[in-house]
Amino acid sequence: MKDNYRDLRVAVLGGGTVGAQVAHRLLEGAAELGSRSGAGLSLIGVAVRDLTAERSAPLPSELLTTDAHSLILQADIVVELMGGIEPARTLILEALGSGADVVTANKALLAEHGPELFDAAARVGAQLYYEAAVAAAIPIIRPLRDSLAGDRVTKIMGIVNGTTNFILDQMDSKGLSFDAALAEATALGYAEADPTADIEGFDAAQKACILSSLAFHTAVPLEDVYREGITAVSAEQIEAAKKSGHVIKLLAICERSFDTATGREGVSTRVHPTLIPRSHPLAAAHGANNAVYVDAEAAGPLMFYGAGAGGAETASAVLGDVVSAARRHVAGGPGVGESTHADLPSIPLDHVASRLNISLVVKDQPGVLAAIARVFSDHDVSVETLHQSASGEGASGSETATLVIQTHSALEARGRETVDALAANPVVVGVTNVLRVEG
Amino acid sequence: MKDNYRDLRVAVLGGGTVGAQVAHRLLEGAAELGSRSGAGLSLIGVAVRDLTAERSAPLPSELLTTDAHSLILQADIVVELMGGIEPARTLILEALGSGADVVTANKALLAEHGPELFDAAARVGAQLYYEAAVAAAIPIIRPLRDSLAGDRVTKIMGIVNGTTNFILDQMDSKGLSFDAALAEATALGYAEADPTADIEGFDAAQKACILSSLAFHTAVPLEDVYREGITAVSAEQIEAAKKSGHVIKLLAICERSFDTATGREGVSTRVHPTLIPRSHPLAAAHGANNAVYVDAEAAGPLMFYGAGAGGAETASAVLGDVVSAARRHVAGGPGVGESTHADLPSIPLDHVASRLNISLVVKDQPGVLAAIARVFSDHDVSVETLHQSASGEGASGSETATLVIQTHSALEARGRETVDALAANPVVVGVTNVLRVEG
Repeated sequence: MKDNYRDLRVAVLGGGTVGAQVAHRLLEGAAELGSRSGAGLSLIGVAVRDLTAERSAPLPSELLTTDAHSLILQADIVVELMGGIEPARTLILEALGSGADVVTANKALLAEHGPELFDAAARVGAQLYYEAAVAAAIPIIRPLRDSLAGDRVTKIMGIVNGTTNFILDQMDSKGLSFDAALAEATALGYAEADPTADIEGFDAAQKACILSSLAFHTAVPLEDVYREGITAVSAEQIEAAKKSGHVIKLLAICERSFDTATGREGVSTRVHPTLIPRSHPLAAAHGANNAVYVDAEAAGPLMFYGAGAGGAETASAVLGDVVSAARRHVAGGPGVGESTHADLPSIPLDHVASRLNISLVVKDQPGVLAAIARVFSDHDVSVETLHQSASGEGASGSETATLVIQTHSALEARGRETVDALAANPVVVGVTNVLRVEG
Repeated sequence: MKDNYRDLRVAVLGGGTVGAQVAHRLLEGAAELGSRSGAGLSLIGVAVRDLTAERSAPLPSELLTTDAHSLILQADIVVELMGGIEPARTLILEALGSGADVVTANKALLAEHGPELFDAAARVGAQLYYEAAVAAAIPIIRPLRDSLAGDRVTKIMGIVNGTTNFILDQMDSKGLSFDAALAEATALGYAEADPTADIEGFDAAQKACILSSLAFHTAVPLEDVYREGITAVSAEQIEAAKKSGHVIKLLAICERSFDTATGREGVSTRVHPTLIPRSHPLAAAHGANNAVYVDAEAAGPLMFYGAGAGGAETASAVLGDVVSAARRHVAGGPGVGESTHADLPSIPLDHVASRLNISLVVKDQPGVLAAIARVFSDHDVSVETLHQSASGEGASGSETATLVIQTHSALEARGRETVDALAANPVVVGVTNVLRVEG
């Protein structure tokens, strides 16, 4: 490799927690990273908004600059760690346009503008690396892009948001309400002051979009990703799940399947609270950890597990990508383009089949079970299990009973119509709980 | 990428289960694999020993040949799936010498002759891929080589042999003896007619050697890997582990640490039955599954989980490597050499610190605990926990008690001396169980 040894100039955009960590490690670990890359790696600068701001890791002040544009022009590898859409998008396009490889952890940007960025990279034969954009240091992008490139991924189910996993895990292990668990997550620094992006599933939806696009060789638009957060998950739901040997997790689900309306093969990408058996490997992801379960035709089920966030963890993934970029520069030739050859259509949620777990309070009187069963059969939804539990007293003073019904796989649209019909049925006091089931 | 589109000739060596699967998928999936590679992939032949043997997947007879040498000369990518040392070694050296990239699943060959093969590849700028050599389709080689290239791996603990995991899992879940569990593994096809390579830990030691070399950027010789199989693991040990909230797994442990004798940083690579808490992520790997736990300085603990064997699973990993090789041919330039820059010495087992779990039967008489405690302190081994359990009647008719002692981390040599001294102590009726503890 010595013949090809050269010096590569690395620019870091962003001086926040991850940016400062990455820059610091590039300086401290230059010799080791160089040995692994087959190239010298020189940090030529860190573009920041405020030269005087405090940094989470020590950086020589002469490396700091507010002029990202000039910095980019001198770099072989540009590491974008600013986050957000602009100016990140413009700067990455500038970097790729100049022939530099780009490493980014920017999930929002990839989910919203991925195809534009990948096209820009392909035009000049540069490469865009983004291992850190999903599940931080857990290798998931590279396994999907490279290790499984000779296989066909059929389904991904990922716990890809640490904040919501922490909240649901606290609710499960301590019996907390959603509000109490969120307060604890905020106090411990797992949730941001405005937790909307996490608890409403926006963050998970961006990651689902990235994973689905990569796994199925298809540019999945973010607006095709169905998204439901965890704010409606109640302590009662968690308790009921527990009793039946299940646990509720916010899953990003990416599935290759057939559109029941058109019969065409397509991709369903969705984020929602999901009931899974406690024996499922994903159920073992506790606290703020992430876990991604991947099923492929030949490989069978695989699982990847670890911390899904954190400055050091994200820096690990970013630096792995920097070494890959450096090796590519040493090898020469164009990067590996993002493959979208499959170009599968998105399947609307209504055309996807799900199993539902429905809890009902019904009047405790003769003929109720028959009436309920009829609602399901009228909508062509088949019941897998039905449990009737302890009856109580309804608001009107009459006796009531609780039914928990799990359906076989049924179209989402049929399932929703069934739930609506149940709610409108005179024997039903109320529908208390509807959850999708996996695993 | 279109400008660089070219046709690449792929040769497969070996027509066994995996070879036939790989060849079959190369034929069936040529278009899809081509789209992902940016190159056409043409299977030019499969070298076999016997042209008339039955194949596990249908292959056109005109592709079969017994002349591996001629086939190699025409190939851009050679896939070696014959197994064993010779003629695999000679053929791979021939292929690399001719400038072809090589994909192999041959763990024995890599463990014994890895440096020779990597050197041959580096001399001509070719690349040797071997994702399938460890844990089949579970991506572990690529995560270590690429994803964690910017981090420092500190420790790997892997369940890398499915046969022994199946046997230990049967013993744990059904209370079977080792012999009964082995018989079941044989009946179900999880164990070979001669199970020595699996149950004596040879297979796991080869994989440990490969993982340790890769993770620590050091050529670890196979003879430096300490190896202990599972034939001595008894139903009683399994039961005792269960009672204390542990489980026994055969672990391949690769650790960066310091040689207590020389003070130098080094690598300890060892395979032995290990007591781990049931709450450890590795404890969840049941049946014949594999799981690899990797701890790195910045990334923290990661785990990779899935099926560790099987024709389809191995073929998945092999084809992922074929796509990587094809992409590299499209990009041009030399491959990524195997990095051995760290060149760390191996640490002999005696200089490694372990925690031990020791079960003793002792005479139930005054002063016994003091005598036992003294043996430990005399050898500078500190006791973490001590449990005395149900006493019984010794062979001589006198009362006995059982002690289970877990030590703090202590030098292997000291630990062994302690066990020898315990066995020789007059208050000790017998040492019934010694296991190393992790997690």
